[in-house]
Amino acid sequence: MNERFCELKLKYEGDFTLPPKHEELQKYAFEHMKQERKSGNVGYYDVPHTHRELVYQASAKLYKTTKKLSKSIDTVVVIGIGGSSLGIKAVESLLSPLPGEEKKIIYLENSDPVDLKKSLKKIKKEKSLFFVISKSGGTIETMSIFKLVLSRFDIHLDSNEKNRLFIITDKDSVLSKFAQKFDITEFNIPLNVGGRFSVLSAVGMVPLLAAGYNVQNILDGAACMIDRFFGGRENHILEKAAFLTTNQERYPINVLFGYSNMFENFTKWFVQLWAESLGKIDKDGNRVGLTPIGLTGAVDQHSFLQLIIEGPRNKTVTFMKINDFETDLCIPDFSLDFIEKTNFVNGKSFNTLINAQCDATKQSLVQVEVPVDSIILQHVDEESVGQLLVYFELLTSAAGAMMHINTYDQPGVELGKVILQERFQ
Amino acid sequence: MNERFCELKLKYEGDFTLPPKHEELQKYAFEHMKQERKSGNVGYYDVPHTHRELVYQASAKLYKTTKKLSKSIDTVVVIGIGGSSLGIKAVESLLSPLPGEEKKIIYLENSDPVDLKKSLKKIKKEKSLFFVISKSGGTIETMSIFKLVLSRFDIHLDSNEKNRLFIITDKDSVLSKFAQKFDITEFNIPLNVGGRFSVLSAVGMVPLLAAGYNVQNILDGAACMIDRFFGGRENHILEKAAFLTTNQERYPINVLFGYSNMFENFTKWFVQLWAESLGKIDKDGNRVGLTPIGLTGAVDQHSFLQLIIEGPRNKTVTFMKINDFETDLCIPDFSLDFIEKTNFVNGKSFNTLINAQCDATKQSLVQVEVPVDSIILQHVDEESVGQLLVYFELLTSAAGAMMHINTYDQPGVELGKVILQERFQ
Repeated sequence: MNERFCELKLKYEGDFTLPPKHEELQKYAFEHMKQERKSGNVGYYDVPHTHRELVYQASAKLYKTTKKLSKSIDTVVVIGIGGSSLGIKAVESLLSPLPGEEKKIIYLENSDPVDLKKSLKKIKKEKSLFFVISKSGGTIETMSIFKLVLSRFDIHLDSNEKNRLFIITDKDSVLSKFAQKFDITEFNIPLNVGGRFSVLSAVGMVPLLAAGYNVQNILDGAACMIDRFFGGRENHILEKAAFLTTNQERYPINVLFGYSNMFENFTKWFVQLWAESLGKIDKDGNRVGLTPIGLTGAVDQHSFLQLIIEGPRNKTVTFMKINDFETDLCIPDFSLDFIEKTNFVNGKSFNTLINAQCDATKQSLVQVEVPVDSIILQHVDEESVGQLLVYFELLTSAAGAMMHINTYDQPGVELGKVILQERFQ
Repeated sequence: MNERFCELKLKYEGDFTLPPKHEELQKYAFEHMKQERKSGNVGYYDVPHTHRELVYQASAKLYKTTKKLSKSIDTVVVIGIGGSSLGIKAVESLLSPLPGEEKKIIYLENSDPVDLKKSLKKIKKEKSLFFVISKSGGTIETMSIFKLVLSRFDIHLDSNEKNRLFIITDKDSVLSKFAQKFDITEFNIPLNVGGRFSVLSAVGMVPLLAAGYNVQNILDGAACMIDRFFGGRENHILEKAAFLTTNQERYPINVLFGYSNMFENFTKWFVQLWAESLGKIDKDGNRVGLTPIGLTGAVDQHSFLQLIIEGPRNKTVTFMKINDFETDLCIPDFSLDFIEKTNFVNGKSFNTLINAQCDATKQSLVQVEVPVDSIILQHVDEESVGQLLVYFELLTSAAGAMMHINTYDQPGVELGKVILQERFQ
């Protein structure tokens, strides 16, 4: 069989592939992931393929509902937290909506009253759609903010106003039942797709679609990476997971260093994925986990870099870099008296400067023997963002399999929820 | 002598004071810090006192210069990176300008061309002041962006337009010489105040003053904390530093968990302070350092918390909390069908909710024996922010003394700068 594969739009340059390669462990994780997929226990592997259809349907549903509203829409309000907002933010920061379809996204996320008040002020109800996103329907911040929105904007569930509301939740959740009772447009999250792995499901794709993003192409990129990985074409993901997990005592901290402000929300999305998936008690009762840190270059060269270079040798660093920012902003080619020392970048583009800074920093880490690798996007476009999201999801699943943990639950946070409820009794 | 001390506006609840208390080590650090101050080697200890005068002068200078400009000013542009921007951002996110004096602050910071382009678009030259901030005058991002601003906005150094420019730099630096040659208004940073300890010097205070902030009161709060510490009234700072440094093998990671979006930039400021100050090769040639992580509550309960609770026991956690947000935003007191489970917060304020979440999370960490403490601000006001900044600076100096390192330099980042320059040759 001469299977053909799509082409990757991101490049991987790895140093985590040194021996020992732990080939048995890699093989085990690969089989484990295939089994997760085949059994239907882990749904995110299939979402990029199955959700193309959902996007068509969502598009029709959104059109049908919003045309009942009197004014044109310019704002998408996302009411959600954690896995229900981080992925949308990550994509929004990297991509731009289609020309003519741009809508502003406002996030109502935290229970911080000052931040909420500020965000609410920016919302004009007549021009807004509201997406309430919660897998279980029991998220205290999301449900409290949803009530606040209903009350503040005087949205009655028995009026035409409810056509501004969209609910994204698990099938049969309490929130789904609520949606059905009041005939609010609803999108479901597959039950086998966990919150932090849900960006490519309705959770991320529907609000982004409503905000004007080309989500079909994001799914195409994602599907490409899934196919290549399960087709055995992206084994470096397994090699990296083997390196990181077998070295977790030596390198307990994994830094993701994105060279562009555009990556800042992406690294936050990664931090949840990595921390919450891998920070677990393993099958033998041991506390395991790898601590993620998100940095932004070149800014954090002036903040965190010193610690990586001279501090304890307990970190790996993954660089993310954009080859072509598609802007032509240049450093003017003139000299300022007394400040000639910085003239060496005169006439160069900022694109060249920031990437040279990324390369120089990487090289300086190599010299002091910090394990590093890079993920390079040729351009930032929908396909490469889809691939990037899946790259980190697959890496996380592979690492979780190698650590013999349940990658997809989060039992540790339940205690705090119980204590919170007790405090109000 | 019955010395009287000002009152603290923040409260400290610590669990890091368990035996062994390392009293000798605490005493050593305290003496070391007194010596740093007395010798004049470390200048930030005196800045809150000495810079009250600077603020008066700066106020007059700003007034005198800006009245030469034709239009009224509504924007302050900060051109700086690392220690030259993080402190300003931290304060800006926590406080509000004086009514009637509010100006927008725009940061030109990173060498990211997309971000730069976006920020430049927001600037109207006629209504803006530009602050170029660099201790040495050799910061590649800052100088390149400065040139870009001169060229983009057609600011000629021999015209009246130069009255929009302000330079904040070390006395006798190349940037200072440049300012003098072209008669640009200049403010100096004391030579003995390092970049990451400079927020209360001209670096932070002058742009914040220009943007309408009550910086005098910030300095008052800061001076209060300095006086109390050196008067022996804040020894818990030494106790905490002793706990963190003597446990650096056991707890190599220190989390700062601020319960409000307002703290997000503050934690970034802290990350630079802690990482760059303590990540060093010590006097015996050992790599030492503590890894800081900034989190935002309640958001990161849905992201990082699982790792702290079930993952490796390698973290301490410091909570920051605001007792009174001074807003009355409440969760509406009604029930949504099927979603009654979240009704237990009905009628409560979001202020109460977020702080209960903070307390519940803290309690859940105590139950699994993670070392925690809290810093509690009654309100967010100028004095408490001044105190909070100095609290962390003093903690850093104490930790550095106990680790026998140079807390105030950053030799590790030089290598990358050399490599960068070579890449352009």
